Amino acid sequence: MIEAETITSLQNPRVKNLVKLRDRRARNQQGVFIAEGYRAISRALEKEVYPQEIYFCRNCFLGENEDALLSQAASHGARLFELSQHAFEKVAYRDRPEGLLAVIKQWSYGLTDLALSDPPFLLIVEAIEKPGNLGTILRSADAAGVDAVICCDSVTDLFNPNVVRSSTGVLFSMPTVSASTDEVIKWIRDRGIRTVATTPHTDFLYTDISLDGPLAIVMGSEQFGLSDTWLEACDQKARIPMAGQADSLNVAMATLITLFEAVRQRP
Amino acid sequence: MIEAETITSLQNPRVKNLVKLRDRRARNQQGVFIAEGYRAISRALEKEVYPQEIYFCRNCFLGENEDALLSQAASHGARLFELSQHAFEKVAYRDRPEGLLAVIKQWSYGLTDLALSDPPFLLIVEAIEKPGNLGTILRSADAAGVDAVICCDSVTDLFNPNVVRSSTGVLFSMPTVSASTDEVIKWIRDRGIRTVATTPHTDFLYTDISLDGPLAIVMGSEQFGLSDTWLEACDQKARIPMAGQADSLNVAMATLITLFEAVRQRP
Repeated sequence: MIEAETITSLQNPRVKNLVKLRDRRARNQQGVFIAEGYRAISRALEKEVYPQEIYFCRNCFLGENEDALLSQAASHGARLFELSQHAFEKVAYRDRPEGLLAVIKQWSYGLTDLALSDPPFLLIVEAIEKPGNLGTILRSADAAGVDAVICCDSVTDLFNPNVVRSSTGVLFSMPTVSASTDEVIKWIRDRGIRTVATTPHTDFLYTDISLDGPLAIVMGSEQFGLSDTWLEACDQKARIPMAGQADSLNVAMATLITLFEAVRQRP
Repeated sequence: MIEAETITSLQNPRVKNLVKLRDRRARNQQGVFIAEGYRAISRALEKEVYPQEIYFCRNCFLGENEDALLSQAASHGARLFELSQHAFEKVAYRDRPEGLLAVIKQWSYGLTDLALSDPPFLLIVEAIEKPGNLGTILRSADAAGVDAVICCDSVTDLFNPNVVRSSTGVLFSMPTVSASTDEVIKWIRDRGIRTVATTPHTDFLYTDISLDGPLAIVMGSEQFGLSDTWLEACDQKARIPMAGQADSLNVAMATLITLFEAVRQRP
């Protein structure tokens, strides 16, 4: 039997606070974020990221494993709160809530915390705007086996609910660092890591340049591409050949293609 | 000045019918589909796909080019209907409607209609479930320059509103065929086109096999992968190496990676 406090009132301060946590500022002030749904929370637990609190609503449950998940989270210290359907629908971020919402402590790594493989293989992204793209980029980085994803001049924060969702749990295991472009360029150079920028403005195809050895692939934002600072700082530029209409590849797709060309070339 | 009929009543039969067109059966019965928003409709016009009707609401317009778009569509035969905001919000599929919704005639190609390049380069997808994946796959196919996308045993129809949206207009130009697996296998074999199936259940890496010459890349569904029929019929199987968690690459991402490896290998 699961022990949980019960909440039915929409005026309950915890309910009100969960709604506030949709807002980046509130998340950062409190140092937490929200993971919603069975898959996201079970991925967190698998990766030993333990929620501080879980809010649940039995009426919304879709499967039969929710209780086991709640027990497991509780055994790792999560406080459980059972919400009325009305209250849960208020706090849920999704349209069709699954009756599970976790509050998890944020984390933050610095560049010096990163454990690099030999040779290093990094992905650097600059000012990505759409949370769905950032989540897909994290998945791609995970599948390609990069050491870490470095976010320069972040626009979308990593703990945005749509990044959490679209990363399908990769957020909980992929080392990520947010830092300024200047810091990152200095850090990369100090370590002798070669940088390859993907941009349409070059004659070099991404398949014709070496993506072997110590490497950081650098991707720009959806709307503006890479900043001049990055384009000038990069050791090499590479473009992806495109048939069809100009915007068929978005930044997440271009990142995936480039990462897997690097995987192909790397021993 | 744009001439348009005015609709304010939610009981108007046209308003009611637009709501019905969210349903696949109604779309197929009437042989039409819906494209919503400025980008989708302007892409249709660019590609000489002319709407039969456009419903608009000035209060929802985001930009300044909507009138030009309406004039252009009208000059190609579209009937225009101006809706009250209340009525438009009822018919809009999106959460934040842009005040433009077009009704467009469906089309349908058969295998024999396809114009193949020499050597042919095709993408075959089986029973894709998520409209967003199908739309992304169309974009990838467009960027890779395939001749056509062949959908076997379709689950999601091509004219689903989320396919229209996520294809970012590629739907209007990419030749697509829906057919049964048996028909497609016969057609492919008759033409001597080699088929390569992407599946985790093989030792061959996708980068180690030839993707040159007459080629069809074959991708399975999200949940079930490729059917036994396709796995047995394929000339070669190939897998994508994956670091990280098992589901980091979804079918749309795997399709993109495989298509661009083919692009790399093809002269």
